Amino acid sequence: MTRYALAVDLGGTKIEAGLVDEQGGVLAASRHRAPTGREITPEGLRGAVSTVVSSALEHLPQGSSLAGAGIGSAGPVDFGRGTIHPVNMPGVHGFELVEAVRDAVIVDSGQFEVDVAIRHDGGALALAESWLGAATGTKASLSIVVSTGVGGGIVVGGRPIGGASGNAGHLGQMHVSTDGGELTLEEVASGPSSVRWAQLQGWQGTAGEQLSDDARRGDRIARAAIERSARAVGRALADASTLLDLEVIAISGGFSFVSDDYIDLVSAALVDWAELPYARSTRVVRSGLGPDGPLVGAAALAFVGPQAS
Amino acid sequence: MTRYALAVDLGGTKIEAGLVDEQGGVLAASRHRAPTGREITPEGLRGAVSTVVSSALEHLPQGSSLAGAGIGSAGPVDFGRGTIHPVNMPGVHGFELVEAVRDAVIVDSGQFEVDVAIRHDGGALALAESWLGAATGTKASLSIVVSTGVGGGIVVGGRPIGGASGNAGHLGQMHVSTDGGELTLEEVASGPSSVRWAQLQGWQGTAGEQLSDDARRGDRIARAAIERSARAVGRALADASTLLDLEVIAISGGFSFVSDDYIDLVSAALVDWAELPYARSTRVVRSGLGPDGPLVGAAALAFVGPQAS
Repeated sequence: MTRYALAVDLGGTKIEAGLVDEQGGVLAASRHRAPTGREITPEGLRGAVSTVVSSALEHLPQGSSLAGAGIGSAGPVDFGRGTIHPVNMPGVHGFELVEAVRDAVIVDSGQFEVDVAIRHDGGALALAESWLGAATGTKASLSIVVSTGVGGGIVVGGRPIGGASGNAGHLGQMHVSTDGGELTLEEVASGPSSVRWAQLQGWQGTAGEQLSDDARRGDRIARAAIERSARAVGRALADASTLLDLEVIAISGGFSFVSDDYIDLVSAALVDWAELPYARSTRVVRSGLGPDGPLVGAAALAFVGPQAS
Repeated sequence: MTRYALAVDLGGTKIEAGLVDEQGGVLAASRHRAPTGREITPEGLRGAVSTVVSSALEHLPQGSSLAGAGIGSAGPVDFGRGTIHPVNMPGVHGFELVEAVRDAVIVDSGQFEVDVAIRHDGGALALAESWLGAATGTKASLSIVVSTGVGGGIVVGGRPIGGASGNAGHLGQMHVSTDGGELTLEEVASGPSSVRWAQLQGWQGTAGEQLSDDARRGDRIARAAIERSARAVGRALADASTLLDLEVIAISGGFSFVSDDYIDLVSAALVDWAELPYARSTRVVRSGLGPDGPLVGAAALAFVGPQAS
């Protein structure tokens, strides 16, 4: 009998739900989305959860079973309480997302209650990377996303490391020093931060894609903005690897594709900054996950179980 | 039947072995030490291991059993290979300490082979803090030592987090920026580093104890050196807590006693630097371990077992 996990991915622009099998395959027909956004209210979010969960569960194949539900959410979260406290959706701080998903499953199925596991989105993605991506079979990995923000998650011995409340890996709020003083990694290295920095140097574009194109054509400011992002990421990763003794760091996220050598630039910066041999030997690689990564990570949480520490 | 662990603590000045029971009690008569030092050779270390292990095992009470052996060593270590690569003892890089301890047990007992677990000293100490100290019952803790160096270890859900090679928690080589540029935490905040900084500002003393006394008497440079150390530690801990989502950080080590409010100063700096609520809420406390901490930590490794990740 095929077992499926109900996977839920809550982000700042949309919530998505789908059914994922134990090999990490997403049942295409089961994927459903609803918009979220900065202004979303608890009532609005409850409705969106109900809609996407119900729509996904309608596609549970006859004769298959539901192993549980997993949620990757914009962070921070509190996995003990089952609540979310997302920076980018202030109206739903404290929202009981685990309960909302559990209720939606009960209402829809008319019968059964499932275990629901939650992590911040970076933690869920890191578990997917360890399950099916670039960090499979490793003893200790950090998987990060460089996009409109910078986030990540930690997996040790195949288990997701949540920490006290489920947010371990949230490295975008670590600090790096730059010519502009002490900033968070996200304030230096994210796509929008890099665009802003380039603009301040006189570059005329407005988006990460332009930065990419212009750097390829030889624009020195655009190239410098990309290198600045990669150096900051590599420096933070050197500290992370010193603290965590990592075997692999996998990098995903739209801005990590801003140049072909972005991963190499990050890796070189890590080697420059890491003081100890074990930290210098951490491999920095591109993510092995496709666009399904967030749903696959949420499903992995369900298969690993809510007791994951 | 009482079960004992053979605990071995290898440091830059001495190696110590002793028998520890399952309540963390150290059998006083079983404690034996031998000198090490920067110039120690593989042959010298092998002899020292043999001496202290044999002397300790002689005191194994009749009718009791040996549960295993645990080693806390000056780092880095490689827990997969069972080797050590200590920064402060260059002559014994690659030394097979796990095998040396196992051999000494076999020779001495004439019969039995035991499991031997190894971590860097900070990792062992963190496990002791989680077992019997200030981090008992917590979901995620970091325990650090501020002394001639700065080190530490991580425990999540009662399990020591070793990382890829057993060195997770080695935070002395994370970076902090200061008026003097980008330095490692240890280069800024250790006892010797703080003394050196005070001397550069015109302070006339030579030791951490004098720094402590002079600060208490109102010497402004001495006080500034202490605050500078605590601020750097707190800043690094803010990043560590952001990355690891820590419930408690326990601080030990001689220099942490340099002023009565050292822990408070560190805690205040962490709150200043932590950007996210979950990181700001990490409790910073003084270690709950006595001087037996290193041996107790090595024993805890043995009781948890070498498979600890």
